[in-house]
Amino acid sequence: MEIDLEKLLLDFMKGSINALAKIITLVENRAKEANEVMKTLYPKTGHAYVVGITGLPGSGKSTLTEKVVKELRKQGLTVGILAIDPTSPFTRGAMLGDRLRMQEVSNDPGVFIRSMATRGALGGLSRATADVIKIVDAFGKDIILIETVGVGQDEVEIVKTADTVILLSVPGLGDEIQVMKAGVMEIGDIFVVNKADREGADRLVMELQMMVDLSCRGGSWRPPILETIATTGEGARELTEKVLAHKGHLQESGILTKKRSQRIREEVIDLIELEIAGYIHEIIKNNPSFDEAIEKIVAMEKEPYSFVREITAPLAAYFKIKR
Amino acid sequence: MEIDLEKLLLDFMKGSINALAKIITLVENRAKEANEVMKTLYPKTGHAYVVGITGLPGSGKSTLTEKVVKELRKQGLTVGILAIDPTSPFTRGAMLGDRLRMQEVSNDPGVFIRSMATRGALGGLSRATADVIKIVDAFGKDIILIETVGVGQDEVEIVKTADTVILLSVPGLGDEIQVMKAGVMEIGDIFVVNKADREGADRLVMELQMMVDLSCRGGSWRPPILETIATTGEGARELTEKVLAHKGHLQESGILTKKRSQRIREEVIDLIELEIAGYIHEIIKNNPSFDEAIEKIVAMEKEPYSFVREITAPLAAYFKIKR
Repeated sequence: MEIDLEKLLLDFMKGSINALAKIITLVENRAKEANEVMKTLYPKTGHAYVVGITGLPGSGKSTLTEKVVKELRKQGLTVGILAIDPTSPFTRGAMLGDRLRMQEVSNDPGVFIRSMATRGALGGLSRATADVIKIVDAFGKDIILIETVGVGQDEVEIVKTADTVILLSVPGLGDEIQVMKAGVMEIGDIFVVNKADREGADRLVMELQMMVDLSCRGGSWRPPILETIATTGEGARELTEKVLAHKGHLQESGILTKKRSQRIREEVIDLIELEIAGYIHEIIKNNPSFDEAIEKIVAMEKEPYSFVREITAPLAAYFKIKR
Repeated sequence: MEIDLEKLLLDFMKGSINALAKIITLVENRAKEANEVMKTLYPKTGHAYVVGITGLPGSGKSTLTEKVVKELRKQGLTVGILAIDPTSPFTRGAMLGDRLRMQEVSNDPGVFIRSMATRGALGGLSRATADVIKIVDAFGKDIILIETVGVGQDEVEIVKTADTVILLSVPGLGDEIQVMKAGVMEIGDIFVVNKADREGADRLVMELQMMVDLSCRGGSWRPPILETIATTGEGARELTEKVLAHKGHLQESGILTKKRSQRIREEVIDLIELEIAGYIHEIIKNNPSFDEAIEKIVAMEKEPYSFVREITAPLAAYFKIKR
């Protein structure tokens, strides 16, 4: 199908949700138009503030996200929500679940919701998420909330790109979860104990307090620990205030600018790697001598490490790389 | 510190656990000796059978793994266990937790246990895991068990490389978990309902049964659904038998050979990408003109997508890539 890219971008600029959704799909699928789209939209980015919310399945991420969004809307801020679904790399497309659960905000034109599947796409989930954040940013949303499951390297990478990271935990989820929580401690800017009416909430708050105290972070921001009950909305206002306070802190201290420069640097390196990975796939595709080499490796007549050195040798020479 | 690689490899060949652990660390850290080590060990690989066990935190993976290992040991099979920890990319090193929990097998010389941190290393967790599997394989273990949390793209990628994939679920973990389970359904060869004495176990078995029936898989292996109580060891023998039955099925049908060829192909491509990513880092490091370009991109005077095209242009020309 031929796409009228000019019209699509024009509709996007006019604020068409339909065009926004189409453009995201284009870029997610790495369609040939993706590069052109991103080039056009890039100058319009940099306005949105990105908030990551992470926690284990069942911790109430979606529900709490919804309540925070309602608070942000009261302040006149527009919001984009990206839900990173832990669905399969095989079952294409994302779930309806989040949208169904977020019924309270999903009909608000000031809120855009998008689910992203964790599929094994070229360039990976973090690449796709970074692009979608830029698109929603260019669309003009003030705040972008990324909701993700708090385990898995990719998920941690994604949440790390947020300006403010909210770490959600709940009382009584058992041992292993405490460990996991410890694992992502360092990336939390705000800690939330959700389902705070459950037994064990006070103890969890105390534990988090201790961990924050012990984590010898540098910097002037001391991560607050809040209690919420997402289902009733209790604590959502305080959480929203803390997010905006953290935003203010990062802006005034100049940290935001520094963090964003660093992120852009990393993204450019990612893009270069992705571009070159594309060349490799191009070269390997339908290449009988590559296929032969693989057969020899499978038959143990050749080992892969020397083979890789061999076929990358001209490239190393080209770049004058010593190895 | 200078490493006597020859001696280390010799000790490894003689069966030194100490040498095995040291070699894994070398390769995990991508030390300069890593390539040489992998080249030397490669011809000794291909013997081990790889089993992936995946399930959410709290589903009893470690406990069940331990019981299965005991069953495998009874049959005289030697075992390597790789526990992929959902710890932070920041907190280096892996936890003692698994080893403590696996006390029943950790003193058995026929069992080797290694925890791997999900750190944000160059090449990523799946690369590191693939290498460590080969090392433990070359060391001579018959069965390698990979234990990983069943969410996150990286974790799914890792488990996909196993010859047999065991998917663990437990009754009563709530909604979102059911969704997740659905997400990884396609990669399961054996389904296990652990904590089968809990309420809801029968319903979960029925649901899994239905999902397997509906999942219109090709092939002649129908994934069995087993019930276990990991803490008491109930069902561990049946599970072990099913694993070995699946192994037999893959071997006799020729599927194992096919799967492994495909995996080697993917791995070679990964290795090429990793090698080239290394070149890029080499080139970018201390390159003032790259730094200048980044500054311009940060200042919105330049957009990254054209810049990436620009700096990869000579390479594209070299490879005669049309873009």
